[in-house]
Amino acid sequence: MMAKPSIPKGTRDFSVDEMAKRNYIFDTIKQVFALYGFRQIETPAMETLQTLMGKYGEEGDKLLFKVLNSGDFLSDVTEADLAERNLNRLAARLCEKGLRYDLTVPFARFVVMHRNELTFPFKRYQIQPVWRADRPQKGRYREFYQCDADVVGSDSLLNEVELIEMIDEVFSRLGIRVAIKLNNRKILSGIAEWIGAPEKIVDITVAIDKLDKIGLDKVNAELLEKGLPEEAVARLQPIIQLQGSNEEKLQVLRRELAGSETGVKGIDELKYILQKLSASPLRSTLEIDLTLARGLNYYTGAILEVKALDVQIGSITGGGRYDNLTGVFGLPGVSGVGISFGADRIFDVLNQLDLYPKESMQSTQVMFVNFGENESQACLGHLSRLRAADIRAEIYPEAAKMKKQMSYADSIGTQYVALVGETEMAAGKIALKNMTTGEQSSLTIDEVIALFV
Amino acid sequence: MMAKPSIPKGTRDFSVDEMAKRNYIFDTIKQVFALYGFRQIETPAMETLQTLMGKYGEEGDKLLFKVLNSGDFLSDVTEADLAERNLNRLAARLCEKGLRYDLTVPFARFVVMHRNELTFPFKRYQIQPVWRADRPQKGRYREFYQCDADVVGSDSLLNEVELIEMIDEVFSRLGIRVAIKLNNRKILSGIAEWIGAPEKIVDITVAIDKLDKIGLDKVNAELLEKGLPEEAVARLQPIIQLQGSNEEKLQVLRRELAGSETGVKGIDELKYILQKLSASPLRSTLEIDLTLARGLNYYTGAILEVKALDVQIGSITGGGRYDNLTGVFGLPGVSGVGISFGADRIFDVLNQLDLYPKESMQSTQVMFVNFGENESQACLGHLSRLRAADIRAEIYPEAAKMKKQMSYADSIGTQYVALVGETEMAAGKIALKNMTTGEQSSLTIDEVIALFV
Repeated sequence: MMAKPSIPKGTRDFSVDEMAKRNYIFDTIKQVFALYGFRQIETPAMETLQTLMGKYGEEGDKLLFKVLNSGDFLSDVTEADLAERNLNRLAARLCEKGLRYDLTVPFARFVVMHRNELTFPFKRYQIQPVWRADRPQKGRYREFYQCDADVVGSDSLLNEVELIEMIDEVFSRLGIRVAIKLNNRKILSGIAEWIGAPEKIVDITVAIDKLDKIGLDKVNAELLEKGLPEEAVARLQPIIQLQGSNEEKLQVLRRELAGSETGVKGIDELKYILQKLSASPLRSTLEIDLTLARGLNYYTGAILEVKALDVQIGSITGGGRYDNLTGVFGLPGVSGVGISFGADRIFDVLNQLDLYPKESMQSTQVMFVNFGENESQACLGHLSRLRAADIRAEIYPEAAKMKKQMSYADSIGTQYVALVGETEMAAGKIALKNMTTGEQSSLTIDEVIALFV
Repeated sequence: MMAKPSIPKGTRDFSVDEMAKRNYIFDTIKQVFALYGFRQIETPAMETLQTLMGKYGEEGDKLLFKVLNSGDFLSDVTEADLAERNLNRLAARLCEKGLRYDLTVPFARFVVMHRNELTFPFKRYQIQPVWRADRPQKGRYREFYQCDADVVGSDSLLNEVELIEMIDEVFSRLGIRVAIKLNNRKILSGIAEWIGAPEKIVDITVAIDKLDKIGLDKVNAELLEKGLPEEAVARLQPIIQLQGSNEEKLQVLRRELAGSETGVKGIDELKYILQKLSASPLRSTLEIDLTLARGLNYYTGAILEVKALDVQIGSITGGGRYDNLTGVFGLPGVSGVGISFGADRIFDVLNQLDLYPKESMQSTQVMFVNFGENESQACLGHLSRLRAADIRAEIYPEAAKMKKQMSYADSIGTQYVALVGETEMAAGKIALKNMTTGEQSSLTIDEVIALFV
């Protein structure tokens, strides 16, 4: 007996219902991307390991899925290699390709390879799966989609403004209430500079992040424990206790960080972005949050994260500005700013709040019951008419028992069931049953079509 | 100096223009699939090698991309394994996953794993990349998309009828004139049975296929050479020279194959399908073609292939009926019928015939030139209005030289360029330039919006 088939751990099949939901999310995002002038690209699932290795830190390198060379994969492997059993060295001999780990490195590689064909600023989006050999756990998969939009080759803060508007528009269309949290890497650098402890940024943001949970005394104690001088902790108090409106926060920051050129630059950037956005009809809350420190080594300007207001879940979108996307591939000076929507978490949020619009889940609009050879022949004509009017319609392929056909109708969630028996054929009518209301009426094909116009 | 980045051979990046074209193809196909009640699923890129191996013949096994186990991939490898250098055995120890080779085997695995959640007949479509370690050459890639629609769990020939209508509708929407060629595996079996040489089917169809090129004498010579008895070749003459309308062909076949039960069954099936389709407003040519023998071991009933009439290229779509999709995974009795669109070839055909509709290639509709801080602030308000009306619009992010901004406008193929300088701001107007005609007019934002309604 054959073993039951299975799929690799951490991967998923998507059923027709799940796909309908995912398509709704991706289609919504794509429409908004297009509204703002972003255009799609795709890159191959496999990249050379030369492109991938060393880009995600030592831990990242370990999480790359490597693809065994095809043909004689041992041809480059010596006896000594085998005897030594050094995993890294052997993997480098056995594999020259890997599966992409994110969309950023392939995009950087794309920009470098195609730089002569591209006009900058280049506004691209990309929605493709990525693979990571992470330990699978709830909500963490080894294959998942990323959904990125970036503008490269422009330093203008208008790009940040438009990306935030895009985020607002996407979540407004999806019906998810969100807070968009903003920070700026330069402000964080300014703070660290100002208290004379540049290497402590992470400790500081981590401690501030706990303020609500553990209270000010414990935050201060933690900072001292991390080796911050008492004087620095004292100076940090207005920052740790930063509160009030965005304007109030900016005022405090401007006062405290006046001595840091970098800090002031960050404050100016943040202020500019908020000011531009104040003219936009945003529906999301915009909130300065100094604890945002995502990808600290990567981002150089704006940092943003999006939190759903009505569901307890991690950030559902993030992004920021980086100064040097392509330097690692030998092309310096390409700066950019981008955002990434967390499709899996957005999927969970929409599920929890039950926010999928009925239309997005609907497939077939009219299903014809099959009563036999003559009747189905009549239905084929009706089907042509409906489909020509862009109405999604199908016929049960066999003259099975009514119960079976109706259970199929239920399973596909059809809006109407159409019955064409001898009576209907003689009268040139269709008995149409509304599956929501249960109501049944006798209509001509033109009247059926008119229902959907 | 860093090496120039590259991508694995046989793989491709898709630029924004290529993606627009591909999306046009896939969107057209998806819309038609949905019109006929097919719904989308997706399966993981990686499958277990247990699922993949042995399904594509020995040659296919060699073309599978295998993924190195993560972590200590040598843990299962003994000294003896290493010493022996047996590639197959070693690969089996090093890898337990591979990249999917087609969409059919993963679909069969999906049906078996989810059989208790599915209602049959199950009509699914799937559009995803597949990977094959083939030698790359013109038009053959190591990563390419397949685009499959199948109905499983129904023996009704109505499914064949609807699939052929779908093909007709897709190519009609794409504007590609095609011939749909039909055959039936049972007719081929009938022929082989009837001349007493069941093992010669492939030789026979290959020889018949050359009739146009080499002529009847040489076809007959080839058949004799392949070991067919003279008497069999003589009996085959009416079949080899089969000509005329589909009705005439069916008549000849029915006369010649009257003695073969299987053959007659195949003829009946073909006739039924043609008859049902005769009531449909098909735009494609339907043509019985006995040389169609694709996937002979796999198909058990209808076989079909689609040829573009105006471009010299291999078949751009194919499909057929199979009796036992899931038997290899321990679930017998699941029959089905399916088709597969060749996206890459369709892409080439549309390119050669220059058939992409202008709208499908258009991204941004209005691009605002950036004249500076105040002017761009005014543009942001206009942009909100346009986007709220679902008009795709953007602003050049910096106040760069006019020439640079216009060259960007060209590169994105915007329909209009909008200029808002001091004069326009004072007058509450927008100077709008039609990029096709060069015409320029001074309009209010409402008038601009009205252009697109």
